[in-house]
Amino acid sequence: MIYFNCDYNEGAHPSILKKLAETNFEQTIGYGEDTYCTEAAAILRKLCGKENAAVHFVVGGTQANLTVIDAALRPYQGAICAASGHINVHETGAVEATGHKVLGLPHRDGKITAAQVTEAMEAHLTDPSAEHTVQPKLVYISSPTEFGTLYTRAELEALHETCRRYGLYLFLDGARMSYGLAASGNDVTLPVLAECCDVFYLGGTKCGALFGEAIVITHPELKKDFRYMIKQKGGMLAKGRLLGIQFLELLKDDMKLYLELAEHADHLADRIRTALRKKGFELVCENTTNQIFTILPIDSVRSLSEQFALSPDRMTDESHQMVRICTSWATKEENVDSLIRAIERI
Amino acid sequence: MIYFNCDYNEGAHPSILKKLAETNFEQTIGYGEDTYCTEAAAILRKLCGKENAAVHFVVGGTQANLTVIDAALRPYQGAICAASGHINVHETGAVEATGHKVLGLPHRDGKITAAQVTEAMEAHLTDPSAEHTVQPKLVYISSPTEFGTLYTRAELEALHETCRRYGLYLFLDGARMSYGLAASGNDVTLPVLAECCDVFYLGGTKCGALFGEAIVITHPELKKDFRYMIKQKGGMLAKGRLLGIQFLELLKDDMKLYLELAEHADHLADRIRTALRKKGFELVCENTTNQIFTILPIDSVRSLSEQFALSPDRMTDESHQMVRICTSWATKEENVDSLIRAIERI
Amino acid sequence: MIYFNCDYNEGAHPSILKKLAETNFEQTIGYGEDTYCTEAAAILRKLCGKENAAVHFVVGGTQANLTVIDAALRPYQGAICAASGHINVHETGAVEATGHKVLGLPHRDGKITAAQVTEAMEAHLTDPSAEHTVQPKLVYISSPTEFGTLYTRAELEALHETCRRYGLYLFLDGARMSYGLAASGNDVTLPVLAECCDVFYLGGTKCGALFGEAIVITHPELKKDFRYMIKQKGGMLAKGRLLGIQFLELLKDDMKLYLELAEHADHLADRIRTALRKKGFELVCENTTNQIFTILPIDSVRSLSEQFALSPDRMTDESHQMVRICTSWATKEENVDSLIRAIERI
Amino acid sequence: MIYFNCDYNEGAHPSILKKLAETNFEQTIGYGEDTYCTEAAAILRKLCGKENAAVHFVVGGTQANLTVIDAALRPYQGAICAASGHINVHETGAVEATGHKVLGLPHRDGKITAAQVTEAMEAHLTDPSAEHTVQPKLVYISSPTEFGTLYTRAELEALHETCRRYGLYLFLDGARMSYGLAASGNDVTLPVLAECCDVFYLGGTKCGALFGEAIVITHPELKKDFRYMIKQKGGMLAKGRLLGIQFLELLKDDMKLYLELAEHADHLADRIRTALRKKGFELVCENTTNQIFTILPIDSVRSLSEQFALSPDRMTDESHQMVRICTSWATKEENVDSLIRAIERI
Repeated sequence: MIYFNCDYNEGAHPSILKKLAETNFEQTIGYGEDTYCTEAAAILRKLCGKENAAVHFVVGGTQANLTVIDAALRPYQGAICAASGHINVHETGAVEATGHKVLGLPHRDGKITAAQVTEAMEAHLTDPSAEHTVQPKLVYISSPTEFGTLYTRAELEALHETCRRYGLYLFLDGARMSYGLAASGNDVTLPVLAECCDVFYLGGTKCGALFGEAIVITHPELKKDFRYMIKQKGGMLAKGRLLGIQFLELLKDDMKLYLELAEHADHLADRIRTALRKKGFELVCENTTNQIFTILPIDSVRSLSEQFALSPDRMTDESHQMVRICTSWATKEENVDSLIRAIERI
Repeated sequence: MIYFNCDYNEGAHPSILKKLAETNFEQTIGYGEDTYCTEAAAILRKLCGKENAAVHFVVGGTQANLTVIDAALRPYQGAICAASGHINVHETGAVEATGHKVLGLPHRDGKITAAQVTEAMEAHLTDPSAEHTVQPKLVYISSPTEFGTLYTRAELEALHETCRRYGLYLFLDGARMSYGLAASGNDVTLPVLAECCDVFYLGGTKCGALFGEAIVITHPELKKDFRYMIKQKGGMLAKGRLLGIQFLELLKDDMKLYLELAEHADHLADRIRTALRKKGFELVCENTTNQIFTILPIDSVRSLSEQFALSPDRMTDESHQMVRICTSWATKEENVDSLIRAIERI
Repeated sequence: MIYFNCDYNEGAHPSILKKLAETNFEQTIGYGEDTYCTEAAAILRKLCGKENAAVHFVVGGTQANLTVIDAALRPYQGAICAASGHINVHETGAVEATGHKVLGLPHRDGKITAAQVTEAMEAHLTDPSAEHTVQPKLVYISSPTEFGTLYTRAELEALHETCRRYGLYLFLDGARMSYGLAASGNDVTLPVLAECCDVFYLGGTKCGALFGEAIVITHPELKKDFRYMIKQKGGMLAKGRLLGIQFLELLKDDMKLYLELAEHADHLADRIRTALRKKGFELVCENTTNQIFTILPIDSVRSLSEQFALSPDRMTDESHQMVRICTSWATKEENVDSLIRAIERI
Repeated sequence: MIYFNCDYNEGAHPSILKKLAETNFEQTIGYGEDTYCTEAAAILRKLCGKENAAVHFVVGGTQANLTVIDAALRPYQGAICAASGHINVHETGAVEATGHKVLGLPHRDGKITAAQVTEAMEAHLTDPSAEHTVQPKLVYISSPTEFGTLYTRAELEALHETCRRYGLYLFLDGARMSYGLAASGNDVTLPVLAECCDVFYLGGTKCGALFGEAIVITHPELKKDFRYMIKQKGGMLAKGRLLGIQFLELLKDDMKLYLELAEHADHLADRIRTALRKKGFELVCENTTNQIFTILPIDSVRSLSEQFALSPDRMTDESHQMVRICTSWATKEENVDSLIRAIERI
């Protein structure tokens, strides 16, 4: 079986494993206060062009999401997001478990707009019963989204401006960050993110590391006591250096490895997209990152699934199913060749 | 100003105040363990035809909702409800503050169906990633709903059957219970509710008492340790007898007072509905309880608002607004006459 | 049976009932935004000498405690209190249920000192692992305490000063406030409380009202959005005026009724204390409010309990038990006479 | 600087790194449902002699603690533990953040007894106000404790029996499990733990792995839906196999590696203990695991600290300080030689 069902089927890029082995017997202090974490944080701050940003490393995305959101909100406040947002549909209510409502808005290809946020805020502010409703205080977006699409620089700037106007925090979930940075047509850079977002993170888990997400906080209020939050939520890794070492490898030399791995995956995804289009299969949305959402005849899904693990989604009609196909930093060119041949044979 | 904006503008029915005064200097033990509460609970059990039901009194509806739901759910479980449900839109995230996601479904006139619950459960049970999503465990409905509509006996029985099949609790918010029991066309009785619901409550606050909701629990698992829950959530009234005394007055003699007060309000609402229909104003939904939702020209809303406090809702188009008009146990016939005349003059 | 077990055995002072009856059919808006609440709040602000204080009314003490504390703390912060504090031992973990640890300190007669708070803060601030522990952010005290003792003005000022120095909120639970204000030897006034505390409340439930606590917030940060908090925690009474009307009666004319009722109870408690001392029974602590903690031979507890409901506490040795005896605004002189005679007969 | 301050200063045993590298490009499904996790779980079940036990792997101890405890308790229930218990003092209120009070009991060398649990339960069960207090439902112990001491088999059996009698869950935190299993004088085995505990875990983080704790659940009620809990709390590792692979290495061949690494550390700790005793330094408690708590003159602490990182604790008097010295699976014999020489030179 060849896996195209997700982007975390393998371990880590060999250079990361090598570095972990080389440093294995060095003694460092724990909980992310070692020199590897310090150095990785410094590099990330520089890449973002934000000398004052706070940088923290945690093991996974759900942890990052729930810790950031609970840190940002007072008890009666909630997080606006796309109804399709990961926090709304795929984290077993992790945010609600910290006491906060997730306020889902209709999305388009996984994205929401500044206009929607404005509308939600105006509705709240003009509601005579506002105190009986959850007060929106944070906007959660992901880019690449759960549909593999990207926010443009203009869209982010509009969201930033809207959030600033209404006193909202803008939080970007970048679990698949590298696949976005490396995507064709992308016009968003780390400095743009650091300007537009109050807090965001760069995924490691899906982008070449064994695990790990690097949280960048630019808003002063969110920086305060954040390590207490990480510890309380169970996210403070005893051997914190494992996170520092991995991100050092990914981010050093201007994110060389981080970007190369993503380019590889995006390129392979492009090849698959081309093959699907050639056969006339519908792409659910236009995108250039490592996730592909397409609609296939159910028979084709079945026959492809004999050889390839895809990620099945909902039935779109009686005889068609939406499926997700993922490439990753570790996807082999030859496996993509096989998949494309199989698509052509449909 | 004459108030038709809600059903809690006045105090309590005079016979309740009288009883409170008569018993004022009796000494009783606290926290709802007095003989008034015991007696009121016994009467309610009898009215429900459920000798084994547990009965608890709390001060208000939000408290009832959050206490019941938090008692019923394990941390990763959530409550299905109409998207318009009070817990979803009008309690400042009280349920989420106890850690649980509210799973809103599209509603029709404030109601959801057994078929919708079945669909939601089948989606969850067949989702290969179910563990990454909130597990539905309770269905919250209100009747009368937030739109003044009622579930029929057949609808409740279908919901009951569906909930039983999927291991869901069925919880009915009866903050306006009496207005439903007394409504023309209603075919639901307390014994029907006690058969169909695992837990439900009868509102006092909006139905003639100063305050208070009477929670009836029929499901054995929900009965256990419920008083710990009430205490923890701040809902255990020190002078608990105030709740017992009020419900005794309302419920004695086969709920005589409780039903009479509601009939009065429902009748007056019917008169207003007739007047609106005569003028050709659209009713948002057909119903026979004490709430009326209609759509009026914005000019008419303004002119009516000079004399009457209505409850404005959203604009339905540029020149029309939805408004809620409420009668209550305390509404004066003469004020309804005035309102009707004003409607006729529009 | 004559009850001396607590101070909430009866209803409310008749003048309060009278006022509720007189105003019963007035129509007001709900949720505490009526003129009675507004007026009661204005009076209370004046009594406190704080024009800018925020005043909110809620139904009960546990609700007041959990709402204030959850509003004040970020998720990783906790509340310092006496180990005997009501929030630590008698509210079924209501504060923990909002996510916050209660940090109990050893107490003396229910009180803690500024020196203890200093020590706790210095320990936290110098702990290299502070981030692995709960950060103290609020000091909860009660006065009268759970042992009926009072903080002096000097003690409160010292606590205030210490809290200010360490950035802690000082929160005083005044569920039995009037019994303290009226007690012999008391040197604390509402303006002193308003100067020293960031938030405190005056109890109504135990001090002559049917129910109700009046929360006074002086710290700007705690004022923000407090009504959202009340609503979320189920503490926003629909007929909020019931709270306003009651506190108006208690507080008008320079708290005339509030203080008179307390003087009555304190005086009767003094008489019982004198009788106990005469018989040589130990008082657990010296105090002048309406609660008496004494240690009696178990036989005497039994014989007294045939006629009087006392509040039994722990066994102090094999043959002696601690008991609490409470008077209240409603305690009858003749019942105290009976109790004193019974004590004398032991 | 040579580190003796904790047992997580280095990476992982080389055989673990080797295995991670060997398996790096295998494709597996995520979230702990891969064959490595399945196999590691099967081995652990066999080692415990419990075919029906549920086994789950999470990244760290705080995560294990908060997830297990929140899964076990209803909202009004709390966890009994030693006042020195890790959950009570060193996890930033992680358990309280899930809504539950930690009920600390006085400890002796980090341990509590069945008699204490009995006493606490009898106090709760005979308290007429029990509903106003937190209901104990789980007993949390750690072994090795935070003081490096061990529960004996007899002590565990007594706790088990007491918990069974009162309907309490017994939960053992085994973050340093291997150092206990390998300790001289230890009479507790995995089958004993599996018989006595309803849930316990074996630490990997401090015992030779990069990270990871293996949770063993024997009580049927705790097994249900546990993966929902892990996901919600952010503890479900995307590349779950990293946990399976590591525990496979540690546990295969009858826990060969797991025990060898611990024997090494315990033996080195014994050598240090002997050196301390020879110099007449007080050991805070007698123990045979990898942690040493001793009291040293403050001057000696300072001079040792120039060469060695120790873990300073509280001052025991003006001139003496308690310090913790830790060995680990990675501690080098030569470094222990240096430390012992330095102790001898004091």
